Amino acid sequence: MPIVLYDLAGAEPDRRFSPFCWRTKMALAHKGLEAETVPWRFTEKEKLPQPNAGRVPVIIDNGEVVHDSSTIVEYLETRYSDRPSLFGDEVGRAVTRFVQNWTETVVQPALVGFVVLDIWRHAAPQDQAYFRQSREERFGRSLEEVAKDREARLPAFRESLTPLRRTLERQHFLAGTAPAYPDYIVFGAFQWARAISDFELLAADDPVAAWRGRLLDRFDGLARKSPAYGG
Amino acid sequence: MPIVLYDLAGAEPDRRFSPFCWRTKMALAHKGLEAETVPWRFTEKEKLPQPNAGRVPVIIDNGEVVHDSSTIVEYLETRYSDRPSLFGDEVGRAVTRFVQNWTETVVQPALVGFVVLDIWRHAAPQDQAYFRQSREERFGRSLEEVAKDREARLPAFRESLTPLRRTLERQHFLAGTAPAYPDYIVFGAFQWARAISDFELLAADDPVAAWRGRLLDRFDGLARKSPAYGG
Repeated sequence: MPIVLYDLAGAEPDRRFSPFCWRTKMALAHKGLEAETVPWRFTEKEKLPQPNAGRVPVIIDNGEVVHDSSTIVEYLETRYSDRPSLFGDEVGRAVTRFVQNWTETVVQPALVGFVVLDIWRHAAPQDQAYFRQSREERFGRSLEEVAKDREARLPAFRESLTPLRRTLERQHFLAGTAPAYPDYIVFGAFQWARAISDFELLAADDPVAAWRGRLLDRFDGLARKSPAYGG
Repeated sequence: MPIVLYDLAGAEPDRRFSPFCWRTKMALAHKGLEAETVPWRFTEKEKLPQPNAGRVPVIIDNGEVVHDSSTIVEYLETRYSDRPSLFGDEVGRAVTRFVQNWTETVVQPALVGFVVLDIWRHAAPQDQAYFRQSREERFGRSLEEVAKDREARLPAFRESLTPLRRTLERQHFLAGTAPAYPDYIVFGAFQWARAISDFELLAADDPVAAWRGRLLDRFDGLARKSPAYGG
């Protein structure tokens, strides 16, 4: 029985743009696990299986419900320990958390400022008011204000990727010769932006763009086949 | 026969402040290897064993000369593979390079701006002119200009440590329950600053300060016993 994954979707049900769901989809593919995704919208809180925290990803695996991308990846690593590891050993797992915290405090907050208005545009009609209100409350500004002058912020964003870029100049993936969960964490952020925005984040000759391309191709083009813009 | 390590020293021969040498000293201790350090000054290029790149650390292990902290740690991991690993498996080793690149492009460049004048003050008399000239050429400004207004830059520096701080709020070390090379890389930067400057980089209640304290205590207080300032 395939694993069921509740996956954030926009007005078009095939446009999937949650960075956290992308982490999980890449992790499932890494483990060679078949998954069936259920498109889910921000406001469909009651449609999620219990228990949940009102957000996706949520998976159902043989009747067991697991939610939160970090909990899901730990579950997959333990439950399917006979399949390719997502972390390697304890050091790999521990240092992956540093990559996660870097992604969530450096990369994702900057990306929100680039794509938040594009998210709103792609959101399902029934989600748009909820999305605008909850995000404007969080930012204390209108979505238009948050997105304003994004071109001016692009150089600083690209500069902030220096530790990633330097690493990828010398190895194919963050995890070494083959990708693993640290790659999927960072990739999830880029795939999120790419799925709902034509704003190009990376210069064409950026080693980070080449790495993103390698991950788009991975797993028979899982991410590349998903509706998105550009690169 | 103990390993010989050429270790950057100041006017006081016991004051050791190279961040790269600290990585190596912690790595040697992690492997349980005895080391004898030779104080070395910036201008003593001809005193280093061959081959070298005019910088420390350089080690001699049973007649074999190895230089550059990254080459040395690979050497130690391979040559002493029967002793506690510095990286864990391939994922751990690969992701450690991300930690290294973050340290060298985010942490260390900021620290130079805080402590460069303190380095000059502590340098051996015969090193001071060389140090000033080579660094002023690199920065295109006087050391005094580089160090100016460092208090004003402190909040942004502390903010830049967010990925490290978040990780250490949830685990004792970057490498998990016990420290390994990713910890020593970042610690080397803090120990460098601490060895030659009384400028306090971290708030007392910062989880990063607690982690630094755990590493100062490690290996029977190896780093804590070395001449330094404060925390």
